[in-house]
Amino acid sequence: MRKIKNEELNRLSVEEFKNSDRLEALIVLDDVRSAMNVGSAFRTGDAFGIEKMYLCGITAQPPHREINKTALGAQDSVEWEHVEDIQTLVADLKKSGYKVAAIEQADESTSLLDFDPQPNEKYAFIFGNEVFGVKDELVEGADLVLEIPQFGTKHSLNISVSIGVVLWDFLTKKRLPKKRASI
Amino acid sequence: MRKIKNEELNRLSVEEFKNSDRLEALIVLDDVRSAMNVGSAFRTGDAFGIEKMYLCGITAQPPHREINKTALGAQDSVEWEHVEDIQTLVADLKKSGYKVAAIEQADESTSLLDFDPQPNEKYAFIFGNEVFGVKDELVEGADLVLEIPQFGTKHSLNISVSIGVVLWDFLTKKRLPKKRASI
Repeated sequence: MRKIKNEELNRLSVEEFKNSDRLEALIVLDDVRSAMNVGSAFRTGDAFGIEKMYLCGITAQPPHREINKTALGAQDSVEWEHVEDIQTLVADLKKSGYKVAAIEQADESTSLLDFDPQPNEKYAFIFGNEVFGVKDELVEGADLVLEIPQFGTKHSLNISVSIGVVLWDFLTKKRLPKKRASI
Repeated sequence: MRKIKNEELNRLSVEEFKNSDRLEALIVLDDVRSAMNVGSAFRTGDAFGIEKMYLCGITAQPPHREINKTALGAQDSVEWEHVEDIQTLVADLKKSGYKVAAIEQADESTSLLDFDPQPNEKYAFIFGNEVFGVKDELVEGADLVLEIPQFGTKHSLNISVSIGVVLWDFLTKKRLPKKRASI
């Protein structure tokens, strides 16, 4: 067993990436304070091939030194758009057929363990401010609220980690049945 | 639907956490340069209830200002130990019955999509330096090499995100069959 060199990784060019099969998922960041978290979201979005990222409210946008430092170029491959008012965006996404899922701890949330994405549905996953979370009105207006179950003393996963967990969970649920069937 | 207040989160006290059912997983960080990554690993380890974290080589250890800032107290709930030489640790872990899994991109790696942890096995997941990855001799000596499949232009997930993805994947594979059976 040996490690793979960078040039062997079959990395897509930005052009190939834009034309590749995508995970039917959007990341929506609303009032995310830390540019490092935005940069990490780009990198994770690139790795798992999301369709697009929306940066809402005060969320930092490229070009931005801290985003570049963390995204390591993924800010150029992942399509993104700034939308000032997230309520308008959510209404538009629903009209376009996206299921809007707020990632939050709420009284009638669905545990991510039980989340069962339907084959024909595409999802927009909303992540909120590092301290205040997803806004109350979005939690109320979302199609579903997904909660990452936590079993420890803190119950506050880092937002970058949460994005990775939610996208990986979605990817496995979307891809595994097909993959397993082909073995 | 309304957000849950902090006091409703059923967070465990540090004492309760130490006595709770744990995920049969260890995190091993080897020569991790960034104290922020170490802090995030503590927070994720707390959330998913790992047994213990090992900090090897130059990996920063508590007490450390940057770790505290990112771990938000999880450095006090997650059991940890500094071991200078990771080869000694790996040999000890194998003797204690742990399967040692290096998280790396390697020529004969197992895709995390195909990773099928056995019910009675416990695992130690090794994460390496941010730039150089897991050391070659560890990749060769590990029981298995797990690779997070990536579909984009970069192929270099942030280490904090990788830890979240690997632990969440492990947790779902360990817990879901039991959970689904009980529905």
